[in-house]
Amino acid sequence: MFELAPQNLVPIISQALIEDQGSGDITTEAIVDRALVARGNFLAKKELVLAGWPVVVEVFRFLSQCISSEVLFDEGETIVKGAVIGRIQGPAYLLLAGERVALNFLQRLCGIATYTRRLVQAVEGTGVGILDTRKTTPGLRLLEKYAVRVGGGVNHRFGLYDGVLIKENHVTAAGGIKRAVQQARSKVGHLHKIEIEISNMQELEEALQVGVEVVLLDNMNPEDVRESVARIQGKAVVEVSGGIDLRNIRNYAVSGVDFISIGALTHSIKAADISLELEIAL
Amino acid sequence: MFELAPQNLVPIISQALIEDQGSGDITTEAIVDRALVARGNFLAKKELVLAGWPVVVEVFRFLSQCISSEVLFDEGETIVKGAVIGRIQGPAYLLLAGERVALNFLQRLCGIATYTRRLVQAVEGTGVGILDTRKTTPGLRLLEKYAVRVGGGVNHRFGLYDGVLIKENHVTAAGGIKRAVQQARSKVGHLHKIEIEISNMQELEEALQVGVEVVLLDNMNPEDVRESVARIQGKAVVEVSGGIDLRNIRNYAVSGVDFISIGALTHSIKAADISLELEIAL
Amino acid sequence: MFELAPQNLVPIISQALIEDQGSGDITTEAIVDRALVARGNFLAKKELVLAGWPVVVEVFRFLSQCISSEVLFDEGETIVKGAVIGRIQGPAYLLLAGERVALNFLQRLCGIATYTRRLVQAVEGTGVGILDTRKTTPGLRLLEKYAVRVGGGVNHRFGLYDGVLIKENHVTAAGGIKRAVQQARSKVGHLHKIEIEISNMQELEEALQVGVEVVLLDNMNPEDVRESVARIQGKAVVEVSGGIDLRNIRNYAVSGVDFISIGALTHSIKAADISLELEIAL
Amino acid sequence: MFELAPQNLVPIISQALIEDQGSGDITTEAIVDRALVARGNFLAKKELVLAGWPVVVEVFRFLSQCISSEVLFDEGETIVKGAVIGRIQGPAYLLLAGERVALNFLQRLCGIATYTRRLVQAVEGTGVGILDTRKTTPGLRLLEKYAVRVGGGVNHRFGLYDGVLIKENHVTAAGGIKRAVQQARSKVGHLHKIEIEISNMQELEEALQVGVEVVLLDNMNPEDVRESVARIQGKAVVEVSGGIDLRNIRNYAVSGVDFISIGALTHSIKAADISLELEIAL
Amino acid sequence: MFELAPQNLVPIISQALIEDQGSGDITTEAIVDRALVARGNFLAKKELVLAGWPVVVEVFRFLSQCISSEVLFDEGETIVKGAVIGRIQGPAYLLLAGERVALNFLQRLCGIATYTRRLVQAVEGTGVGILDTRKTTPGLRLLEKYAVRVGGGVNHRFGLYDGVLIKENHVTAAGGIKRAVQQARSKVGHLHKIEIEISNMQELEEALQVGVEVVLLDNMNPEDVRESVARIQGKAVVEVSGGIDLRNIRNYAVSGVDFISIGALTHSIKAADISLELEIAL
Amino acid sequence: MFELAPQNLVPIISQALIEDQGSGDITTEAIVDRALVARGNFLAKKELVLAGWPVVVEVFRFLSQCISSEVLFDEGETIVKGAVIGRIQGPAYLLLAGERVALNFLQRLCGIATYTRRLVQAVEGTGVGILDTRKTTPGLRLLEKYAVRVGGGVNHRFGLYDGVLIKENHVTAAGGIKRAVQQARSKVGHLHKIEIEISNMQELEEALQVGVEVVLLDNMNPEDVRESVARIQGKAVVEVSGGIDLRNIRNYAVSGVDFISIGALTHSIKAADISLELEIAL
Repeated sequence: MFELAPQNLVPIISQALIEDQGSGDITTEAIVDRALVARGNFLAKKELVLAGWPVVVEVFRFLSQCISSEVLFDEGETIVKGAVIGRIQGPAYLLLAGERVALNFLQRLCGIATYTRRLVQAVEGTGVGILDTRKTTPGLRLLEKYAVRVGGGVNHRFGLYDGVLIKENHVTAAGGIKRAVQQARSKVGHLHKIEIEISNMQELEEALQVGVEVVLLDNMNPEDVRESVARIQGKAVVEVSGGIDLRNIRNYAVSGVDFISIGALTHSIKAADISLELEIAL
Repeated sequence: MFELAPQNLVPIISQALIEDQGSGDITTEAIVDRALVARGNFLAKKELVLAGWPVVVEVFRFLSQCISSEVLFDEGETIVKGAVIGRIQGPAYLLLAGERVALNFLQRLCGIATYTRRLVQAVEGTGVGILDTRKTTPGLRLLEKYAVRVGGGVNHRFGLYDGVLIKENHVTAAGGIKRAVQQARSKVGHLHKIEIEISNMQELEEALQVGVEVVLLDNMNPEDVRESVARIQGKAVVEVSGGIDLRNIRNYAVSGVDFISIGALTHSIKAADISLELEIAL
Repeated sequence: MFELAPQNLVPIISQALIEDQGSGDITTEAIVDRALVARGNFLAKKELVLAGWPVVVEVFRFLSQCISSEVLFDEGETIVKGAVIGRIQGPAYLLLAGERVALNFLQRLCGIATYTRRLVQAVEGTGVGILDTRKTTPGLRLLEKYAVRVGGGVNHRFGLYDGVLIKENHVTAAGGIKRAVQQARSKVGHLHKIEIEISNMQELEEALQVGVEVVLLDNMNPEDVRESVARIQGKAVVEVSGGIDLRNIRNYAVSGVDFISIGALTHSIKAADISLELEIAL
Repeated sequence: MFELAPQNLVPIISQALIEDQGSGDITTEAIVDRALVARGNFLAKKELVLAGWPVVVEVFRFLSQCISSEVLFDEGETIVKGAVIGRIQGPAYLLLAGERVALNFLQRLCGIATYTRRLVQAVEGTGVGILDTRKTTPGLRLLEKYAVRVGGGVNHRFGLYDGVLIKENHVTAAGGIKRAVQQARSKVGHLHKIEIEISNMQELEEALQVGVEVVLLDNMNPEDVRESVARIQGKAVVEVSGGIDLRNIRNYAVSGVDFISIGALTHSIKAADISLELEIAL
Repeated sequence: MFELAPQNLVPIISQALIEDQGSGDITTEAIVDRALVARGNFLAKKELVLAGWPVVVEVFRFLSQCISSEVLFDEGETIVKGAVIGRIQGPAYLLLAGERVALNFLQRLCGIATYTRRLVQAVEGTGVGILDTRKTTPGLRLLEKYAVRVGGGVNHRFGLYDGVLIKENHVTAAGGIKRAVQQARSKVGHLHKIEIEISNMQELEEALQVGVEVVLLDNMNPEDVRESVARIQGKAVVEVSGGIDLRNIRNYAVSGVDFISIGALTHSIKAADISLELEIAL
Repeated sequence: MFELAPQNLVPIISQALIEDQGSGDITTEAIVDRALVARGNFLAKKELVLAGWPVVVEVFRFLSQCISSEVLFDEGETIVKGAVIGRIQGPAYLLLAGERVALNFLQRLCGIATYTRRLVQAVEGTGVGILDTRKTTPGLRLLEKYAVRVGGGVNHRFGLYDGVLIKENHVTAAGGIKRAVQQARSKVGHLHKIEIEISNMQELEEALQVGVEVVLLDNMNPEDVRESVARIQGKAVVEVSGGIDLRNIRNYAVSGVDFISIGALTHSIKAADISLELEIAL
């Protein structure tokens, strides 16, 4: 998993540790004996889907090579409330130094995986894929998209550079759907498909006429989505987005679409409830 | 406001833009004429408290000095649903290049300020301050704490380096409350007060005996908090935390504490609903 | 043009200047009066296609805002031997400080554009596109691919991240063409087409059966290419590569392929012959 | 060899890998099993002089400490067409991740060493040294100059900071050869010799009169070079440059000069033809 | 000790080595055989207090993992003239590469610790703490404050961020002592004490009336300090600074103050006299 | 002056400001009104030689483009006690933000220039040049060597990369003076002279026999230096070093040497006494 390669993790981990430690942990430095060794248990205080343990490992490896760790579950496994997720062991002052940063990463990533999993379960049996968006936290996109995948979701494009998505603003700027699609087709590399955002039937007609390969139905209600799918007749892949959450996702999922994309997956997530409990090793 | 100085903003803005643009925006480059000028309106799609407009300005200034901006509200003002927050104007392809990154910052910071404001309003008249924690998004701590302040909250320490907070793990490591506080007092600089986390009356007694200056009551119910405050008798500043949200915060606020700290302020926030609508300038 | 945005150029320009200047230009500092103003003409000493002037401008802008520049041709224009390409004016010691770095960039990019143009002319009328590869100079990929485009070529994928190309090694690792393509299809995002490298008719058959969208014919002679094209019958886009240069490219271009990719475009280029001649302004 | 110290290699290797991998290798991630182990042979597809294997090692070490490597030749050895240069072994997906970047470095450096070797052989027996120039690829100067040395060449100054070379533009700016040399002598550190570029006999006279220690004869034909050498009579070291290549270098080498400098050594090199062939380890 | 964590040391060590080595150590590369192994002894050429050995270790570890080291004293120990402080062993060319940088760090830090120790000894028995200031060398603050601590001194705030010190300029800007202190109290976090700079009795009165917690008596003579202490009556911690050195510090120390701060501790220190002597290992 | 180019200054200024400000100046942010404008005078509290004003300008320019500055003296001028060196004007909170960092740079550089000037005056009339060494503060070498030049001194090599100096350890490693010099001559570039460290007459003889161009007499008394100079007879440039300071430098200067190098110039300097006094602008 590329996102978890040290060269990708070290810069953000380093930045997060610097942000937290600045010129040093004055409490721990005053109180905790450097020779003291401790064990720490990461506890799931509510049920969650695990995502991001390799980041925890890297946080502590960055601080010192004297810290060992073990994890009791695989990424993507559901962990029940009260269970120990994993353990670390090493000098107490270093465990305290990394505690908050490790938890900040882990709680966010598990939060994303857990919510993704719920959405995936909500569409079970329909064959619909749950997509993320570019509405990610600045600096954490790769990790957040990783957590979506761990939760069972599917990644939409990673940025503006690796996929063509013609949105409403592009159509306005290009002077119409037809011209926008034709321009894209003539200039974009031969390995890209073209997706276009559509908000009504007329736009859909136009898009199908110029032969787009993927259609994004934006802010439509389930009935309009159903009608659109009927019109498309399998001639394009269909993605739907806008105002979809756990309560209404099933309605959309059974309408015949291929993918549902959800911004809240990364921009409005509840952190998973996890704590680190230290015990002094004797 | 130091957090908003360009030298602080440019690295994270640069990182966020690189993350989004990689080797270039292939859709816009194929479709949008470089000479096209556009105006963009940032719309509040739900009521929100504004925080982070200076980051939006800096995102577009980073992209080009040809983009102008104006904002119609002050940081901290409440903006009603449907109102235009601010405007940008410049080459359409550059507005499109910065759109998502600017929104990702703005929606998160407004989300934090909006929730902080609600908590502040919930304790109105009690004199209690709403504190944030170190449970912030890796890389965004200064900005998130800024948004808390804009929403009317008060910043707890910025990291491990600028305040002494003796937590349960420190007490364990030091071998008791008394030793922990004495160690801290003898080693920590002469400008720092000492705060200690307490979870029951016995610990509280011990802490008061060694004369700590600030007490953090952790995971207590309002009754226990009230009893603790009575015992403290103004001899220490009192902070309370753990499981407090909009529904129960008033119960805690009227118990006589000085501060309530809320991790969810920064780790489980709902992004404010904001969109950018472009119109082609003629 | 995204590649030429200052945020992309400044790091490599800064690196190149540091590499050249280290602790300072001891010759110029000893000899050249700081108050001396000079004009410099960039001369084409052989015919060339212009690419990279914006990099030259940025090199000198990085050194000082007191240096002005003008260019007499557009990117992509052919410039005859002996012509002045453009001019700079400013403090002599700064022009000397940037001279070599500016030329090192300009000569390489013009060299690439010039060779690309020749290949494009060699296939004129066939409708075939000239593609680059990932065989670029470490650190300069965006700029080199920009120069290819300026010369009239078409960019293949920018890296491993924005396009799927299944090469021989992937087939080996996956255990056959069929499995490789199926794996790719099931895991890769919905905006990507799948390209596969093929070196004989049997592999081609297999690839067509699993419905790949793009075929790369590797190291085939023109006859085999022709036969393959006949077999493909327009069911896939066809790219050809391997041992193709100015002498034999036409043979491949008339064989019915869509694209020809040439590694030498970026890995074995002759720098364009350009010099900077200073004259002291009076 | 300082150029090959990890602290020098890691930044450019990291940059090259980021450039190639961006948000991840989508092909390999979809197709190649993480548990699959492979061996890779670097094959010389044409005869070449080896230079840069330590960079290859560092590329793969950067990716993972699980990749082992061995090389069958020393830097500077000639390798015949078809021979295996060296081998790597490790997880297949990591070998694929580093393949192109490793080859891009290795092919360029071998290309430089190979051409340098040919020039060195062309002047064999004359005692003349083959010098490089500052006409190097931005960002790769140390490595390219290393390859020149491996090929048997001699390094001219590394940048503007470590040697005094008064060129035509400096003379113009200083107002004459005499003043330029005197200025240099009075201001430059006591460990530097002074070299001056000369293009005719009159300039040579002037330079000899002020006692320069090294003379660079620029763009002269062999006859004029011979005449100049006769005039210099060993009173200065003699370097010659301008329009010299494999076809005419011997003519210059026998004219009595000490060094011949060749810009093409680094700016117009043909990449060595090398491929990496993977085989799955059982 | 946080200051000595590799993530803090590596950037400044790397910067110092780059500054010294640039494109390589031309003397050593020409002369010293790569296979030659040497031992190096760090000799105290005058009596000193050891501080900074872990930086020496890290300098050589940065250069290579083949260099071993041992130290014969603890940080903070006094070392007599002529004694060996510690030893390194490894490839001679690497020891030579790191020698000057290691010594530049070590001599400065030992210089600071040595002078701090003398000041501490000069106030022995008075209970007064010797404080440093923010008058540190740009880029070396953490290390210099570490050396002060090693020498027996106490650290004042690390920067503008971790302590409140209202200086004369702040009072001017705020419009009086009272307003300045009240402003600070209402806005600064609940973990900070407030210190104010005072230069006469009237200011002192005003400060005591608004209840500041720490008073800095600036540029007073010992008599005025004594009078001030009498007036303060233990209601505030007392720091004194300005024009205090080894000759007069005792006069201040016996006046009843708690702390004496000395800028010269970090801005005007004499480097300790240390040399590295290599011997070739057989 | 290359050292003062923004691209060189910005990194160390940025680092110094980050080091001082961390998460923000809590005192100023609480007390000083953002709208308040102030003027600041830099006062020489003792006589000094000015060096480093351009760094002061850049510190404040880095903070904001709203700060103006003027300087009343040239670099290198002597400024009497009590004089105003220069002025800055702008928002009070920004002047306070940059004050300490600006002073830390300025006081150090003026300290170096002032001491250099005294040494230069002490050798007046002898023609001897005062050289610095590589014993500089990590990270500040270019600036410190600049200050030496401003004070009237001469720069020795900037690092290991731009000059050959064979020291005792090199001789040991090479197995004798003769071999060391011959090795250096055969491998080092044609623009470098060779200097060797000598500590007695026998070594001097050996060095002269192999024709070194510069001799460094290390730790000799003036008589031995005189004798050495007599022996050298102008056949090599002569530098002397070791234990030389203001009290004994004249004795060495009249012994016929060309240069005297002084490590204390950069490693044991007393910061110049300078303060910044703010006044509120009305």
